[in-house]
Amino acid sequence: MAALDREVAARVVLQQCLHAKLQVKPPAEDSDAEWVEIQRGMVMYVCFFKGATKDLIPKMVSSLVNVKLSESDSGKHVSITELPGDVLIVPQATLGGKSKGRCMQYHSNAGKEQGMELYAHLTAQCQKELETHARWSESGAVLRYGTYGNRQVLKLDTNGPYTHLLEF
Amino acid sequence: MAALDREVAARVVLQQCLHAKLQVKPPAEDSDAEWVEIQRGMVMYVCFFKGATKDLIPKMVSSLVNVKLSESDSGKHVSITELPGDVLIVPQATLGGKSKGRCMQYHSNAGKEQGMELYAHLTAQCQKELETHARWSESGAVLRYGTYGNRQVLKLDTNGPYTHLLEF
Repeated sequence: MAALDREVAARVVLQQCLHAKLQVKPPAEDSDAEWVEIQRGMVMYVCFFKGATKDLIPKMVSSLVNVKLSESDSGKHVSITELPGDVLIVPQATLGGKSKGRCMQYHSNAGKEQGMELYAHLTAQCQKELETHARWSESGAVLRYGTYGNRQVLKLDTNGPYTHLLEF
Repeated sequence: MAALDREVAARVVLQQCLHAKLQVKPPAEDSDAEWVEIQRGMVMYVCFFKGATKDLIPKMVSSLVNVKLSESDSGKHVSITELPGDVLIVPQATLGGKSKGRCMQYHSNAGKEQGMELYAHLTAQCQKELETHARWSESGAVLRYGTYGNRQVLKLDTNGPYTHLLEF
């Protein structure tokens, strides 16, 4: 079995995609919904817990950008900068849920302000780290991300999501 | 922070969907790919670890079928049988990965035969449990599932995936 014997400050679920489209502003009376989209690359669903601090971000960014979870054309697993591919970061506080009976509780989740701040740091630092990789930045690949606190209306097209869980 | 201080025998990631389509047989020289699809409901990505046994299945099924993770039209969270909605179970051994440096290792995963057997039990018992709920079985809702060991080519359309992690 898998041993899990430590406290978790952030949880990320990663999925490969061929195309993904995420709503970043819901439709209003006088405006259509706004969306961001990515082509082949990686979707990262992110949740922060109470006790998480900015100190966590460099390690998270380094792992997320460098872990070999993207399948190249030859079938080899490479990092998103080696692919090179797009990145979509989705805030997903529900990932912090813990079941109690038939209901989910979110008592361990970071507060809204703290979560929002950490999320902003994560997206900014990911962009910065990705740009240090010439192969990624010269390829025209992009980083896109959802609006914290919004409903994350998402469409996803994969050639195998190859779902992974990373905890920090 | 979230405390995790026990061994895990199975890991499930759940996402709400409006529509999902999963390849269950890849295309061959003389045949097209085969797919299953579901409408509004829940996608469950499942991974078993070493040490998991059949004894685990009843508890997993009870949780997965009864946990209130589906959003009803009124915005209230209800179980998949109360919605009522479709279920798509996706075998996803990659969920058992653990990062070591830049690579993922799967040393804690159940062996192929053991995983296949547990997966078959899970899908069969889920179907059975779902059918005991008149509201679900009379609604025409369906359970579909992927082929163990295949590449899980997946297309997903959500109104907010509302991603949750359950461990058993």
